Amino acid sequence: MIKVQMKDKFWSKYMDVVRNEVIPYQWDALNDRIPNAEPSHAIKNLRIAAGEEQGEFYGMVFQDSDVAKWLEAVAYSLENHPDTHLEETADELINLLGRAQQEDGYLNTYYTIKEPNNRWTNLRDNHELYCAGHFIEAAVSYYKATGKRKFLDIMIKYTDYIISVFGTEEGKIPGYPGHQEIELALIKLFDVTGEEKYLKLSKYFIDQRGEQPHYFEIEEREREDKQPFFFYNGYEYHQAHIPVREQDKAVGHAVRAIYMYTAMAALARKTNDATLKQACEKLWDNVTKQQMYITAGVGSSEFGESFSFDYDLPNDACYTETCASVALVFWAKRMLDVEIHSKYADVMERALYNGTISGMNLDGKKFFYVNPLEVWPQACNRHDKRHVKPVRQTWFTCACCPPNLTRLINSIGHYLYSVKNNQIYVHLYAGNETRLKLNGQNIRIAQKTEYPWNDQVILSVTPERKSAFTIALRIPNWCKQAEIRINNERIHVNQQDNGYAYIDRIWDKDDQIEVLLPMSVKRVRSHPNVRENVGKVALQRGPIVYCVEEVDNGENLPNLFVPIHTQFDIHFEEELLGGVVTLTGDGLRIEDSVWNGELYSSNTFQKKRTKIKAIPYYAWCNRTPGEMLVWINEC
Amino acid sequence: MIKVQMKDKFWSKYMDVVRNEVIPYQWDALNDRIPNAEPSHAIKNLRIAAGEEQGEFYGMVFQDSDVAKWLEAVAYSLENHPDTHLEETADELINLLGRAQQEDGYLNTYYTIKEPNNRWTNLRDNHELYCAGHFIEAAVSYYKATGKRKFLDIMIKYTDYIISVFGTEEGKIPGYPGHQEIELALIKLFDVTGEEKYLKLSKYFIDQRGEQPHYFEIEEREREDKQPFFFYNGYEYHQAHIPVREQDKAVGHAVRAIYMYTAMAALARKTNDATLKQACEKLWDNVTKQQMYITAGVGSSEFGESFSFDYDLPNDACYTETCASVALVFWAKRMLDVEIHSKYADVMERALYNGTISGMNLDGKKFFYVNPLEVWPQACNRHDKRHVKPVRQTWFTCACCPPNLTRLINSIGHYLYSVKNNQIYVHLYAGNETRLKLNGQNIRIAQKTEYPWNDQVILSVTPERKSAFTIALRIPNWCKQAEIRINNERIHVNQQDNGYAYIDRIWDKDDQIEVLLPMSVKRVRSHPNVRENVGKVALQRGPIVYCVEEVDNGENLPNLFVPIHTQFDIHFEEELLGGVVTLTGDGLRIEDSVWNGELYSSNTFQKKRTKIKAIPYYAWCNRTPGEMLVWINEC
Repeated sequence: MIKVQMKDKFWSKYMDVVRNEVIPYQWDALNDRIPNAEPSHAIKNLRIAAGEEQGEFYGMVFQDSDVAKWLEAVAYSLENHPDTHLEETADELINLLGRAQQEDGYLNTYYTIKEPNNRWTNLRDNHELYCAGHFIEAAVSYYKATGKRKFLDIMIKYTDYIISVFGTEEGKIPGYPGHQEIELALIKLFDVTGEEKYLKLSKYFIDQRGEQPHYFEIEEREREDKQPFFFYNGYEYHQAHIPVREQDKAVGHAVRAIYMYTAMAALARKTNDATLKQACEKLWDNVTKQQMYITAGVGSSEFGESFSFDYDLPNDACYTETCASVALVFWAKRMLDVEIHSKYADVMERALYNGTISGMNLDGKKFFYVNPLEVWPQACNRHDKRHVKPVRQTWFTCACCPPNLTRLINSIGHYLYSVKNNQIYVHLYAGNETRLKLNGQNIRIAQKTEYPWNDQVILSVTPERKSAFTIALRIPNWCKQAEIRINNERIHVNQQDNGYAYIDRIWDKDDQIEVLLPMSVKRVRSHPNVRENVGKVALQRGPIVYCVEEVDNGENLPNLFVPIHTQFDIHFEEELLGGVVTLTGDGLRIEDSVWNGELYSSNTFQKKRTKIKAIPYYAWCNRTPGEMLVWINEC
Repeated sequence: MIKVQMKDKFWSKYMDVVRNEVIPYQWDALNDRIPNAEPSHAIKNLRIAAGEEQGEFYGMVFQDSDVAKWLEAVAYSLENHPDTHLEETADELINLLGRAQQEDGYLNTYYTIKEPNNRWTNLRDNHELYCAGHFIEAAVSYYKATGKRKFLDIMIKYTDYIISVFGTEEGKIPGYPGHQEIELALIKLFDVTGEEKYLKLSKYFIDQRGEQPHYFEIEEREREDKQPFFFYNGYEYHQAHIPVREQDKAVGHAVRAIYMYTAMAALARKTNDATLKQACEKLWDNVTKQQMYITAGVGSSEFGESFSFDYDLPNDACYTETCASVALVFWAKRMLDVEIHSKYADVMERALYNGTISGMNLDGKKFFYVNPLEVWPQACNRHDKRHVKPVRQTWFTCACCPPNLTRLINSIGHYLYSVKNNQIYVHLYAGNETRLKLNGQNIRIAQKTEYPWNDQVILSVTPERKSAFTIALRIPNWCKQAEIRINNERIHVNQQDNGYAYIDRIWDKDDQIEVLLPMSVKRVRSHPNVRENVGKVALQRGPIVYCVEEVDNGENLPNLFVPIHTQFDIHFEEELLGGVVTLTGDGLRIEDSVWNGELYSSNTFQKKRTKIKAIPYYAWCNRTPGEMLVWINEC
C-alpha cells in the first residue's frame, strides 16, 4: 500500500487546474451546458437508458466512456483533495448509473436505447467492452478513494454478467474487444476484490485475440456485413491480426495497442507468464526504439490514428494522440512492475513532461488531440495535414483525450514509487509526502524539489523504527553525473545495470537524502534512419524537451540553424508560461533577400546571426499562435 | 506557317516509342484488348452511342477524351511519320465519331447513352465541354496533318450547336465548363477556320467564369443538388471563385488552372486584351516563382490534384501530375506568343526535359500520374502518401496522363520556333529540319545537336534568296557564357533583356550558326521559404535536373551529404537508360553504427566518405525500383 500526497510545485498547478477548471468544465460538457459546443448528451443518454427521460441516444458509440473517465478523474482528485460537493455530485451520477444498469447487469446506453436486441453483435467496432473497461477502472478508483462500494458493486454485477457471456465454452461468445481496455481494467478489479475470475477473463481476452478462426470474421458473417474493413481490410488496426504473443512490431491504432500492451504486462506479472513478458519486451523495444517521437508521442499516422513503420516519424504530419502518450505512461508503469529498469521510468517521465501535458493549455481550457513536433499554421490547411491543429480546441466530438489527461494528472502520485521485497524504488522526482508499508512497517517518505527546473531533490525518510532496507533511486538517462548525499555526507553513487542507485543502510527517523541531478542543456539527435531529422538537433534539459516558437523567434523556423558550438543560457522565467526555464543562445538564420524573389538559383545559403530562444515543448501555443518546431537545423 | 521535321537523337527515341509502343498500346486499351487491365470501354461507348451495339455506358464521365487525345497524338505522329495503316484506323474511328454524333451535332457518349435528357445540367462536374474541347483539338490537328476535313466538320457542327446553347442571351445557358479545355481548343478552331464566332465563344467562357450570380450555384439549385462541394465547398477548385482577371494566385485543380491560363494567354494575344495579359503575367509569376518544383512539376496537393499555397512544396507528398506539367508547356508557348521572353521558354524546356517525360518509362509501357521528387517506397504505404507510387503503373482508370504525354511528345516540333515580323526565334535546341515563311519568303532552318548532353548546336539557315532578317536565339537561364559563331567566326553575343541573342544580318544559303551553351554542373538551391529544401541542393546540368537512386547509392538517401566543394565528373553512358550523362562525385554518408540501435542520443552525426552518382530525374525508376531523391543535403 502506497499513499502519495502530491506537494509539488509543477504538478500541483496542473492538479489545481484539473480540479478547478477541467473537472467542472467536463461535468458541464457531459450535461450539455457549454454554450456553442456540440452537446455531449452523455448524461442524457444515461437518463434515457434509466427510463427517466424520453429521447434518442446521441453521440459516439462510446459516449459512456466520457462519463467513466470523468468519474475516474474525480476519484483521483478526491484522493488528493477531499471535496464533499464534488463527491455528492459523483454519488448522484453513480446512482444514475445504477438505475441505467439493466436487470442482468448490462450497462451501455447506446445498445440499451438504440439497439437493445443487438448487444455483442459488433465487438469489432462498437466499443461495449471498452466502455465497460473504463467504468470498471473508474469504479475501482472511486472505491479506493472513498471506500464506497456502490459503483464497484454495479461494475462487479456487470462484469459477472460479461463472464457469463464470453469464452470458448459452448454457448458463449468466443470474442474479444475491438478496442482493448477492459483487459487492464479487469486486473484492477482483481487487485481490489481478489477474485481470480476477473484475472481469468482478462487472460481469456488476451489469449483469444487474433486466434483462428478469426472472431471478427465470424461476427461479420453473422451480421451479414459485406463492407471491407476501412483499415486496409486488416486487423492490424486492433492488433488482432495474429495472436498477441507473436506480435513484435507495434501496429494499428496506437491507443488500442498500448492499452493492450499495458494489460499484457500486468497479466505477465500476475500470472508469471514468460512468453507474455517476452512479447511485452519486444513490443517495448519496437515502440521506444523505432516508433516513438522525442516527446514520447506515438502513432505517426493519422489514418487509423496508428503506428506506421520503423523510423517513419514525420514531425509535421504525425498523429501522436494525447491519449496514446497517456497510455504509454500506463504501460511503462506496468513494465516497471514486471521488472525494475530505468528505461521504463525514463520513457514514463518523458511522456509525463512532454507529450501528455502538451495536450492541454496551461489554463486547462483547450486541448490538443494531435501533438505535432512541427507546425506551420498555413500548412494545416493542406488536406493531408488537416488533423494537425495549429491551436488547441475547446472540446471534441470524440472527447477522449481531455478526460484521459485529467485522470492521468490527478493520479500522478501513483507513478512515483514501487515497493519490492525490502526495497523502495523512487522512479520519479516530484514534491510529495508518502506513506507506504515495507515488511509490515509503516514508512514515511517525502520529497522536496523544484524539479524539473532545478537539479536538487531532498528526500526525507521516516521509518516507524530504525531498520535496514534499501532505497533505490532512479538515475535518469539524461543525467551523467548524479550526486547523492545522506545527511549531508556524499556517498558513492552505486548505479546498477538497471539504472537505479541502491542505498542499503539502516534508516532512522529524519534521515535525509539529497540527490543532485545536474541538468545541462543536451543536444539530442535522432538515429539516422529517421529521415526527417537528419542534420537536426533537439534541445533537452532534464526531462524537458524544448521547442522554438514563432512568437520568440520570428517566422520560418525551419530556416534557423544552431551552430554546433553554441552554448545555451538557462533562465528561470517566473512570469512566463506559469514559470519555466527557457534556453537562449546564438543561432543563424538564412538570409533570404539575396534571392530577389527567385524560386531556384545558384545562390549559396548565406546566414546571418540571430538569437534563438527555446521554451518547453509542453507549453507551446499558450501565447500568440504561430509556428513551432522541435527539431532545429544544426551547422 | 512553320513545318518542323524532328531529327533529334533525344526526342526521336521518345517519338519512336510513342509511335511504336504507346499509340498501338493505347489503341488496344481503348478497344479493351489489354489482358488483366480494367476495360476502357471508350470505343464501345461510341458504338453504343452510334446505335451499333447494345450495352451500357462504362468508364469515367470523360471517357471520350481518351479517344480524342489518342486521335490528336495520331495526327502529330502522321505529321512526322506518315503511316497509311494508322491513318486508316484513325479515319475509321472518325467515321464512328460521325455516327455517334447526334442529329443536332451533340457528341458525348456518357449523356447520349446514360442521361439523354440531362445534357448540360451539371457543367460543374460532368466534363461535357471538356470532352468537346479535346475533340476540337484533335480535329484541328488531324486536319492540319492530313488535310482531311471530315473530323473537323464533325466538330464544327458540334461547336455550332454549342454556340446555340451557351451565352448570356435570353434562352441560353449562362454557364461555362467545370473543367476548362474547350477555351483553348476554340482558339485553335478559330485559327484554322478564321471564324470569329469560335473566338467569341472562347472569350465568353473566359469572361463569364466566376461572375455573380454564380452559375454553378444556379445549376446546383436547378438539379436540386444539396451535397456540399467536396473541395472545401469552394470554386477555387475550378478557378471559378472570382472572375479570371482578378485572379493572381494559382489555386485549385492544377490541370484545370493551367488549361485556363493557356486559353487566357492565347485570347489575350488574339483580342489584344491588356487586362487578360496582365492576369496571365501575375499567374505566371505566382506559379513559376512560388508554386513550381524544380522539375516543373506543379500542384503540390493530392486533395483536388491541386495547387496549395506559396512555397508549400513537399517533395515526398506532392501531386505534380504529369498532365499538369504537360499543360505548363502549352501555357509557356502561349506566353511566348504574347511576348517573347526566355523566362517562358526556360520553364517550357524545364518541363519538357524533366517533369513531363518522367511520367513515362523509357520503353513507353508504364506511366506515372504523380511525379514525386523524393520516394521512400515503404512510406508510399502511408495513407497520406498512397497517391505516390514508387513504380510506374501500366494503365490508369483515369487515363488522362499517358495520352496527354503522347500528344505532347509527338508535337514537340511545335515548340521550337516562333516567327514575328522579320524575326525568327529559336526557343529550343533539338535536331530538326524546318521550313517556315518570313515576309513571304520560304526559309529553311535546320539544327544539328546532341542536346541536352552536349553544348554544341549547329543551325544552318537557307533563305530562298539572300536577305536581311533577324535570328534570335534563346540563351537558357542555366547558361552563363554562351558562345556564337557564324560561319566559323565568333561574334559578340548580343543578349537582350528578354534573354534572346539577336543576330541581324543578311543571310545567304548555307549560312551556319554554331551555338555553344556550356553545361557545367550547377548546384541549385531553393528560396529559403521552401522549408523542405533548406540546406539542400539539387544538381542540374543544362536543362536536365538530376536525382540519386537507391540502385546507385544504397538505401537511406536522405543520409547523403554533398560537400560544398565537391566537383562532379560528367560521363556520357551510352548503354545506361538509353544513353545519358551521369554525374559522379565525392559525398558523405552518416555513419549509423555508433547509434547502437538507440533512437535518440547525444551522438554527433559522424560522416564517412562515399561516392555519389546522379542520373537524370526523368529516367528514374527504369532499373531496380527503390528510393529516389532530388534535393540532397549539402554540407
